[in-house]
Amino acid sequence: MSQSSSSRHLENAIRAIGQLPGIGRKSALRIALFLLKNKAQILPDLISGLNGIKDHIKHCQVCHNLSDDDMCMICRDNSRHRQLICVVENERDVMAIEDTGQYHGLYHILGGVISPIEGIGPQDLHIPTLMERITSGEVTELIMAVSPTIEGETTIFYLSKLLQPHNVKVSVIARGVAFGGELEYTDGVTLGRSILTRTQMEMTENA
Amino acid sequence: MSQSSSSRHLENAIRAIGQLPGIGRKSALRIALFLLKNKAQILPDLISGLNGIKDHIKHCQVCHNLSDDDMCMICRDNSRHRQLICVVENERDVMAIEDTGQYHGLYHILGGVISPIEGIGPQDLHIPTLMERITSGEVTELIMAVSPTIEGETTIFYLSKLLQPHNVKVSVIARGVAFGGELEYTDGVTLGRSILTRTQMEMTENA
Repeated sequence: MSQSSSSRHLENAIRAIGQLPGIGRKSALRIALFLLKNKAQILPDLISGLNGIKDHIKHCQVCHNLSDDDMCMICRDNSRHRQLICVVENERDVMAIEDTGQYHGLYHILGGVISPIEGIGPQDLHIPTLMERITSGEVTELIMAVSPTIEGETTIFYLSKLLQPHNVKVSVIARGVAFGGELEYTDGVTLGRSILTRTQMEMTENA
Repeated sequence: MSQSSSSRHLENAIRAIGQLPGIGRKSALRIALFLLKNKAQILPDLISGLNGIKDHIKHCQVCHNLSDDDMCMICRDNSRHRQLICVVENERDVMAIEDTGQYHGLYHILGGVISPIEGIGPQDLHIPTLMERITSGEVTELIMAVSPTIEGETTIFYLSKLLQPHNVKVSVIARGVAFGGELEYTDGVTLGRSILTRTQMEMTENA
């Protein structure tokens, strides 16, 4: 499939499309021919969308989330609970939490987790801006929504230590057996921990 | 997942990427964030590739294949057998045949097959230019490499009739059981036809 196209421009496009994650050469060819067929509308639309990514997306100066302006829509939204900050690893986590519709506070994106193996230390994360936000006084609770991995736990531990002198509650999102999951297929660590960190049944509603 | 992004530009890009065949919203998001991360190289490369499709790809005036110039590389290649024309439906068929490395003649792309159901008649196909190439006198054989469907067969029949007055051999690519395929899983029509159109074993090489 390497020299089969009769157009160098098509070849270039196929090669460029094939660099995208999850797209092999066959899919790239299919997409290129699809775009050639839809030259009038979908192709210019796609090019303008990509130029938007290239030229216009910045990072919010407060929470480091993706944004069109210096401050993102979430940080500007005055209807959100400004005393709550949810600390996450990256912008995908923000999207995932926003999709649940269960959280109405603000966010802070660390840009990663502490990982000695990958050479990522606290100095590589957006920790100084988080500390600034806390010393400003408005924040009462930090919710750690970091992946429950060794690196994530290390990061949470590091931040908790750092936050100890400040008058702010630190919480961690609940870990345990996933809703809808079969108990027998849950991994041992999760299941064992879920027994240790069991919560008392709230019977008040039925009482 | 509909309003969760904090950037309108990112949303636009995700929507545009999601219009591509085989790419859903989750993949589109993944691709958009990948491009945002690779703003410096892969993204400009992709945009330039797409602009190439938009602005530079034409159709060969002789065979209607995709081309960067008025005449495609295959038609310009003087080392190819110019007396042979392989008639195909579209440019993907040319690529597939070129990939086999078994054919060294020229091509003619019809741009489809006769299909009364889809409202495609002979007047919608690149038949006039094919007839022109034949009357020019250089061509001795036309190889019909059209899909073995009812529409394909109709097209082959129509072209054969049209070509009858001309001094040109018309052949059809071999149909039968695919190499490497299991006989028991071959569909009945193909298997039945493959018995009717059996070919005699050539034993000369072993003799």
